[in-house]
Amino acid sequence: MKVVFATGNQGKVREVREKLKSLNVEVISLKDLNVSLEPPEETGETFLENAYQKATYYAKRLNLPVIAEDSGLVVEKLGGLPGVRSARFAGENATDEENNALLIKKLKELGLTESPAKYVSFFVFSYPETFGFWSEGEVKGKVITEPRGSGGFGYDPLFIPEGYSKTMAELTIEEKNRISHRGKALEKFVRLLKDVL
Amino acid sequence: MKVVFATGNQGKVREVREKLKSLNVEVISLKDLNVSLEPPEETGETFLENAYQKATYYAKRLNLPVIAEDSGLVVEKLGGLPGVRSARFAGENATDEENNALLIKKLKELGLTESPAKYVSFFVFSYPETFGFWSEGEVKGKVITEPRGSGGFGYDPLFIPEGYSKTMAELTIEEKNRISHRGKALEKFVRLLKDVL
Repeated sequence: MKVVFATGNQGKVREVREKLKSLNVEVISLKDLNVSLEPPEETGETFLENAYQKATYYAKRLNLPVIAEDSGLVVEKLGGLPGVRSARFAGENATDEENNALLIKKLKELGLTESPAKYVSFFVFSYPETFGFWSEGEVKGKVITEPRGSGGFGYDPLFIPEGYSKTMAELTIEEKNRISHRGKALEKFVRLLKDVL
Repeated sequence: MKVVFATGNQGKVREVREKLKSLNVEVISLKDLNVSLEPPEETGETFLENAYQKATYYAKRLNLPVIAEDSGLVVEKLGGLPGVRSARFAGENATDEENNALLIKKLKELGLTESPAKYVSFFVFSYPETFGFWSEGEVKGKVITEPRGSGGFGYDPLFIPEGYSKTMAELTIEEKNRISHRGKALEKFVRLLKDVL
């Protein structure tokens, strides 16, 4: 079975491809397909909605099943920000450094040095015939205002998972994958896909 | 397998129960369960989001798989209204008559006697462990400003399905079920549930 993974991130493609190999699912990226489709706008106010929009958009146009993922950081004291805007918190093509700097600034403006937070990931699998499934993974913790560590990406240098004293960027890849929101979502996703196939 | 259908509409419960009988799925309603849980707020801006919120809310609290459905009428010339507000267009406890009257008023205010429209239905099945699946059904058509027919419910007296000259409220139950948004969504839903079981 051929499935398109609607992401520009080749690292994510490799990760999902690896996980689905044993199910006889061939994961192809948008780049592999070599089609030129305007990417859909991300207008959703939730991770599920964004992943769903992306997946159904491509599933209808390509007439193939499509996987999409949306994820981000939800900071309690910032009313859930950056949330669905995690990747573009400081602007459309913001770097991780710019996004992290803005998060720190916003917390400091409130006189805070930390806040409860969680990383959330949603995977969606959409068939062209407007049905499909989703899985959610999350990791609870807190964000701090002094970045630490050089591993990972995104807000990892600011995020300390519950039960840890290190930031996500200070963990080894193996540790991070074991506890990460994306890892958890993907695990359930694979289980569900196995049932459906 | 026991599944809760999170709806106050016993007609919908009967319909879904009937469809899932052959899968050995026992559909119980919130009323059957006799638990007193505050219903969740419907804050979603889409049918999927509302059905998803309802299903996951109860699945987590009851620790059982939960079915939820959200549906409504999307009127093109009204920018998608009443949409997720279909049942409460004219106010929280509005009757079908009040909602229909408001729809007619809004169209007439724009100088219109009709508008392209579609009925949309989303079914969601949520496991307590934050994964699940959805199916969507829709029926395209138009709305008019002169109500006709006494069958069905909701906006049926104003909605003429594509290829028909009668309103949904003038069709027989059998005709309506064959073409309806809910019927289509439910059909895919049953197929998916069969795969997952």
